[in-house]
Amino acid sequence: MAAVVSAGFGKFGKRKENILEIAAESALPITRKFRDSIDFVLVSNCYSGEFNGISGLNNLVTTYLSMDALPSIRIDNTSGSGGAALFTAVSLVESGRAKSVLVVGVEKMSEKPTKEVTRIISSLLGEREKAAGPSLPSLAGLLAKDYMREFGAPRESLAQVAVKNHRNGALNPHAHIQKVLTLEQVMGSAVIVDPLRLFEISPISDGSTSILVVPDETAESFTDKPVYVKGIGMSSEAAYLTDRKTFTDIPSVRRAGEIAKRQSGVDRPDFAELHDMATVLEIVQSESLGFFKRGEGWRAVADGVTEIGGEFPINASGGLNSKGHPIGATGIAQAAEVFQQIRGEAGQRQVKHAENGMMMNMAGFGNSAVAAVMGAVR
Amino acid sequence: MAAVVSAGFGKFGKRKENILEIAAESALPITRKFRDSIDFVLVSNCYSGEFNGISGLNNLVTTYLSMDALPSIRIDNTSGSGGAALFTAVSLVESGRAKSVLVVGVEKMSEKPTKEVTRIISSLLGEREKAAGPSLPSLAGLLAKDYMREFGAPRESLAQVAVKNHRNGALNPHAHIQKVLTLEQVMGSAVIVDPLRLFEISPISDGSTSILVVPDETAESFTDKPVYVKGIGMSSEAAYLTDRKTFTDIPSVRRAGEIAKRQSGVDRPDFAELHDMATVLEIVQSESLGFFKRGEGWRAVADGVTEIGGEFPINASGGLNSKGHPIGATGIAQAAEVFQQIRGEAGQRQVKHAENGMMMNMAGFGNSAVAAVMGAVR
Repeated sequence: MAAVVSAGFGKFGKRKENILEIAAESALPITRKFRDSIDFVLVSNCYSGEFNGISGLNNLVTTYLSMDALPSIRIDNTSGSGGAALFTAVSLVESGRAKSVLVVGVEKMSEKPTKEVTRIISSLLGEREKAAGPSLPSLAGLLAKDYMREFGAPRESLAQVAVKNHRNGALNPHAHIQKVLTLEQVMGSAVIVDPLRLFEISPISDGSTSILVVPDETAESFTDKPVYVKGIGMSSEAAYLTDRKTFTDIPSVRRAGEIAKRQSGVDRPDFAELHDMATVLEIVQSESLGFFKRGEGWRAVADGVTEIGGEFPINASGGLNSKGHPIGATGIAQAAEVFQQIRGEAGQRQVKHAENGMMMNMAGFGNSAVAAVMGAVR
Repeated sequence: MAAVVSAGFGKFGKRKENILEIAAESALPITRKFRDSIDFVLVSNCYSGEFNGISGLNNLVTTYLSMDALPSIRIDNTSGSGGAALFTAVSLVESGRAKSVLVVGVEKMSEKPTKEVTRIISSLLGEREKAAGPSLPSLAGLLAKDYMREFGAPRESLAQVAVKNHRNGALNPHAHIQKVLTLEQVMGSAVIVDPLRLFEISPISDGSTSILVVPDETAESFTDKPVYVKGIGMSSEAAYLTDRKTFTDIPSVRRAGEIAKRQSGVDRPDFAELHDMATVLEIVQSESLGFFKRGEGWRAVADGVTEIGGEFPINASGGLNSKGHPIGATGIAQAAEVFQQIRGEAGQRQVKHAENGMMMNMAGFGNSAVAAVMGAVR
């Protein structure tokens, strides 16, 4: 087993700094304390070539951090890169191939115009689907329609996710959008892909988050309050979306969650950070992960169950929806949020009784998913 | 410890097929035999975005191979991606996080014109050096001059590496350039970066190679002749080349080699596959790895020591120089060559007494290096 013993946060948003400066913003708080023990660096990043014209990012990051000799790898699994990097870090310390892995999740997206960003991200679609011209937001629009039709969910129940997540994000100093929104504001914002509106889709953000992963045996030598990765699962699904039977259940998410729960022995964590690239996705994921019955996730939102003060808080961080979604950083930011919550260090957005939390980081449109259950007790 | 139990080879060269077809060419021979036991896929690739306009390559590859649900990650460490993927695969099976990892190394480079390819690859240089406009071949040119001046190596001794490696490559059915060259032909080819000539620099190639990595405990259930990864080391150096004291010793290569030798207990393997992106690099690497004294590697080439029939064969495969260098595939191709040699399955290019072999895969201009000692006996 492995543990997270430190987390560093950069501010998500439109940033003027270059990608190395952004990466360093979250990595330096960790390296300042633990430089001498770090022996491996993973950089979770997907699009440094496409967005920033940079390759070999892992090596540039270690150089920028003055850790020249350290082995490093860039880990890419599109939007699920952070989850994949956490999985790899856990494996590296469990195998003894590394003693202490600095994982830096980073993306700088704002160098390109929105249209270009959407086109680049859509390059993960299979060729036959690319020909039909969908983008990931347009798929989320389709899913929203399917979900409402299949389960009779009112349109407002989806928008309510954005209201909740923006309220949470306003309490998160690292979040991109720190602005409380009313239901009317969400429903009145511009239609991006029918029926989804501007505030229901994660913004294009720059940013980084870093964590330090060590074997559970040594965790207490780093901190009094390690947070253990008690279970972690990774699963995938066909890249060809036309092969999917339904959009309203996501098999990769379901399977990754099942593995994480089985390994950890925690069937019901106390809270979760999910991959709400669009509002409807948070709801569908909360069902695929078994937190709510299929078709009933929207009711949990409507009833306030998923609020910070609710029975099962989801995205207390603000989620991708308000915190932002710098692609390579997202999964690490989720793990870092769970880490802070379990340590009771989440400030105004602290959830009660946060003993075990789940993060679930998704790639593509459920093309891949990594779920981890993290907890205070081994 | 881990073992390689199967290898699949694609033809290196200019290919008309798309990157998924190229990846499948080497992966299918393995999946046809071992599909049911494979539970993780690593795709070693650096530039699918820049060269092919594709992201999420790992997911597209598993889908193409009809292994939809398998977790997968794209591993990038520029030219050292294959080495990094081998390191990750070893860690995954040693930690028990995976039981059997298919590693697919693939790159399709020929979609872009040579000038564009060189520009893209040079995007791994630091900003201040990029501004000065060097490319990786131009750095190799500088190194060649330094090496000749420092150690009095005759110009022909460098070209002799190309003669040897093309002679070897002509015996390798997977090699890009299967053509025996005379010293006159090498020395008479076009100057690319003074003093290095066309046949001294690896060509731009498409291609893939795949291997299957399992824990040593289960290796014999896959094959009668597993090849064990007895030691594997990874190390790096500053991305900023102006920080290097010298080019004629490569610290990342030296350190990675030391780790691999120490772990394996094999100080003197029987042969090696090195990263001869340019002829002079093979010589310098053979010294940094301790196979020859500093400044004497060129003599070993001149004396035939590194020939297939020599005392210490280097790049019996033809090396990057003649086999080609499809970036993400190279490290895996090196491991696969060592695998074949140790199993005695290298045909006309078989080296004698191949009990232990080393592969050394380098990234950038020594920015990173992975060295592994592989052997027939645990």
